[in-house]
Amino acid sequence: MKQITAGQIAEAVNGNVIGNTDLAISGVASLMEATENQASFVGNKRYLSQLPDSKAGIILVDKKLKKQLDTNRTYVLCDNVDYGFSKVIAFFAPEPVTYAPGIHPSAIVAESAKLAEGVYIGANAVIDENAEIGSGTAIGAGTFIGQEVIIGAQCQISPNVTIMHRCKVGHKAILHPGVVIGGDGFGFVPGPQGLAKVPQTGIVQIDDDVEIGANTTIDRARFGRTWIKSNVKIDNQVMVAHNVEVGESTILIGQSGIAGSAKLGRGVIIAAQAGINGHITIGDGVQVAGTSGVVKSLPAGSIAVGTPAEGQREFMNRRSMPKKFDRLSKKFIALKAEVEELKK
Amino acid sequence: MKQITAGQIAEAVNGNVIGNTDLAISGVASLMEATENQASFVGNKRYLSQLPDSKAGIILVDKKLKKQLDTNRTYVLCDNVDYGFSKVIAFFAPEPVTYAPGIHPSAIVAESAKLAEGVYIGANAVIDENAEIGSGTAIGAGTFIGQEVIIGAQCQISPNVTIMHRCKVGHKAILHPGVVIGGDGFGFVPGPQGLAKVPQTGIVQIDDDVEIGANTTIDRARFGRTWIKSNVKIDNQVMVAHNVEVGESTILIGQSGIAGSAKLGRGVIIAAQAGINGHITIGDGVQVAGTSGVVKSLPAGSIAVGTPAEGQREFMNRRSMPKKFDRLSKKFIALKAEVEELKK
Amino acid sequence: MKQITAGQIAEAVNGNVIGNTDLAISGVASLMEATENQASFVGNKRYLSQLPDSKAGIILVDKKLKKQLDTNRTYVLCDNVDYGFSKVIAFFAPEPVTYAPGIHPSAIVAESAKLAEGVYIGANAVIDENAEIGSGTAIGAGTFIGQEVIIGAQCQISPNVTIMHRCKVGHKAILHPGVVIGGDGFGFVPGPQGLAKVPQTGIVQIDDDVEIGANTTIDRARFGRTWIKSNVKIDNQVMVAHNVEVGESTILIGQSGIAGSAKLGRGVIIAAQAGINGHITIGDGVQVAGTSGVVKSLPAGSIAVGTPAEGQREFMNRRSMPKKFDRLSKKFIALKAEVEELKK
Repeated sequence: MKQITAGQIAEAVNGNVIGNTDLAISGVASLMEATENQASFVGNKRYLSQLPDSKAGIILVDKKLKKQLDTNRTYVLCDNVDYGFSKVIAFFAPEPVTYAPGIHPSAIVAESAKLAEGVYIGANAVIDENAEIGSGTAIGAGTFIGQEVIIGAQCQISPNVTIMHRCKVGHKAILHPGVVIGGDGFGFVPGPQGLAKVPQTGIVQIDDDVEIGANTTIDRARFGRTWIKSNVKIDNQVMVAHNVEVGESTILIGQSGIAGSAKLGRGVIIAAQAGINGHITIGDGVQVAGTSGVVKSLPAGSIAVGTPAEGQREFMNRRSMPKKFDRLSKKFIALKAEVEELKK
Repeated sequence: MKQITAGQIAEAVNGNVIGNTDLAISGVASLMEATENQASFVGNKRYLSQLPDSKAGIILVDKKLKKQLDTNRTYVLCDNVDYGFSKVIAFFAPEPVTYAPGIHPSAIVAESAKLAEGVYIGANAVIDENAEIGSGTAIGAGTFIGQEVIIGAQCQISPNVTIMHRCKVGHKAILHPGVVIGGDGFGFVPGPQGLAKVPQTGIVQIDDDVEIGANTTIDRARFGRTWIKSNVKIDNQVMVAHNVEVGESTILIGQSGIAGSAKLGRGVIIAAQAGINGHITIGDGVQVAGTSGVVKSLPAGSIAVGTPAEGQREFMNRRSMPKKFDRLSKKFIALKAEVEELKK
Repeated sequence: MKQITAGQIAEAVNGNVIGNTDLAISGVASLMEATENQASFVGNKRYLSQLPDSKAGIILVDKKLKKQLDTNRTYVLCDNVDYGFSKVIAFFAPEPVTYAPGIHPSAIVAESAKLAEGVYIGANAVIDENAEIGSGTAIGAGTFIGQEVIIGAQCQISPNVTIMHRCKVGHKAILHPGVVIGGDGFGFVPGPQGLAKVPQTGIVQIDDDVEIGANTTIDRARFGRTWIKSNVKIDNQVMVAHNVEVGESTILIGQSGIAGSAKLGRGVIIAAQAGINGHITIGDGVQVAGTSGVVKSLPAGSIAVGTPAEGQREFMNRRSMPKKFDRLSKKFIALKAEVEELKK
């Protein structure tokens, strides 16, 4: 059984031990599930209250919380608990599942497709005409790669993904199951026979180091491209509409949606279930709170909350209406009594 | 043609006939679509107003609504209309679609996989290395079962489902098409080269008697497990993030989302499009209204509404602000007039 | 290289040129991305401010905005910019991807299935027993068509779609990847052994000219049918629950959800992320704003905003509470001062 001591953990995460440097653990778990033989972590002061009830042998804690720890157990203090605990997790993690290069005999690969060295194509996957797949990329079972799609090197495309014709995926992309890249954008105009489809003739372009969560959909552009820039991280069930542009290192969290032609800057965070209107611009570093609905463009660095979204101060003021109203009501009653008194 | 009389229905649902016991119908339909030869139902008093316009031959009605019925037609009164009408539906339902045990020749089953007796594997399904599938379980066409996945007995796994490596599914699970179990959890830490992926080394564990709706996604844990306990019912397009724990018999309705490490108790109901923040605890029997965003832990038995979610009373008070404000405004104007009067 | 002049564009869109009729462009792009050799468009006056910074050679503009244009460049004025620009896009669009009729050798087609003339069945698609597919319809790779499903003529069913047993799809339907038609509706009743499944024995019926976006799910009825009428357009990740009825030419935008047995009229627009409660009726032509939660039936032609949804006027009044409150507070302070004065 694999084991690691508090001292070894401290060395690995560049941290310090409080307590027993030689104490060894053989696994990881959450604070409340961990046993004496496991390590856990406190990444946030709100978990400090759970510490007395945790049986964890070793606990990784943020250096800043040092003064709030009781001293009868073993801690490893570190600068970045998340990062540090990931190292401990990795130490105990099972061997990753990997696939040796090669094309499964049941996969259907068009003769005109170009596969670079070291590519893996899973069972029953379909690679359509003139598609190109970069070196070391793995295509999961049952995945469809459309005509003239270009995928870079070292990508991990999961099973049951769909990438439609002519879309482009950069290097080192990770696409989880059920992702759909390049479905048509949603566009109709009223016509003589009802709603007429606006042809969606563009593509989706995904740059390098992008990760896309399960069942997320990114629509092809009406013309030109829907553009996901490098290092963007997208969670599950996110919807990105046609002609959207998402800037470098932006994060789109689960079930959020970006409407057509919206333009997001760099380092933006769109929290879970939030929605961004079409045709607006979200500046660099903007943070949108979960479930918010953003209807107007937002300047760089701003924080938006609520629907329609507004600044935190405005939002808090709005939230406090009932309290403020009660206070004013009471004051009003008092004043009315004074007036009654005066009238007498 | 199959037929059933009011008397036979009453016997089957342990109810009473008002009207013609021998009246026979040959099918079911909704109140407004039903003909004289069909049965329908009123499960809720708000549908009573549609009764005069319904042509249904027999109507199943809640016993409590007896006094509100006009007497010139045939009813079957019962304690639980939903349950009773299900019996009538079942009587007329077409034969269910079933699949005889066997492995379709086009399915790809790894030699190391273990299939119990009576298993059905659909066309083009893929069962990866060392997967185990329990007796009587059906795996739909095009479904992917990853390495070392363990699935219990008597499960119905639909077509085009994806279950990633090492996840566990209990007995009698029903998974609808497009479900993704075990995509990576969403975790990144800022690193020297931008956002660095936090490895997701855990699994998803689904206990017995769980049903999961179309295109729902349940992410694997960062470490340990994302845990769906027995008898949980999950609707379509729900997102369950990494390390979430969902208690027995809890219900997650369509398009709701549960963020990472949240812990839900037993018998919780999360209504449609609601969101639960990460790292919070939702007590047993909590009910969260549709579209609500819950940001704090909730005690057992509580009801939460709105975003950020609060109690029903607080929510109703907040909703009534415009009315209360108008009343206060009017009172203020009156008082001001009195003061003006006094000043004179 | 293909080229088109301002005069030729004007002729095609029935518009007028301002500027150089002979100016030719060789492509299209958005206002800020277009070069001198490309056409772009202004469909909305809020983009007028970007005009001075655009390098586009030719700009299509709504006739109504004529007076707001500076005159030193080339415009094509038209009645419907969206429609007109679509024509220019189509002129430059790459050849559409098409599939010649035929059945890919890897597709699994049951002997009892009936395929009309000119059908295309993609690689690894599965057509189950007694399914019927109309003439000229294309079924994408990896798609599953269940037992006794009936699909009309000239449909485009994308790869990795799932249509479950007995559902019906009309003519000229367009289904994008990951769509699930006919998963079970979500219904349970409390029973002696916990939640008991309510059998879902009905179907989904989709009429002609319907388009359905990626990863959208439409559940089968408990009995009878979930009914999507002709010319309905549904965006990505929309959820339509069991027994819902959606009227002709209604539009359901991304991530919206319609709960069980709701009935939507003709020409309704449900904007992004909005939710419609179960068992309510939405009249013809109703418009529901994005992210709204509609809990009561709405009369024809109404507009609903917010959660719980209300009229625009009520919504705006509610939004203005903080401002109104501040004004009243100030007036109150002034009045209180007057009273103090009087008391002296």
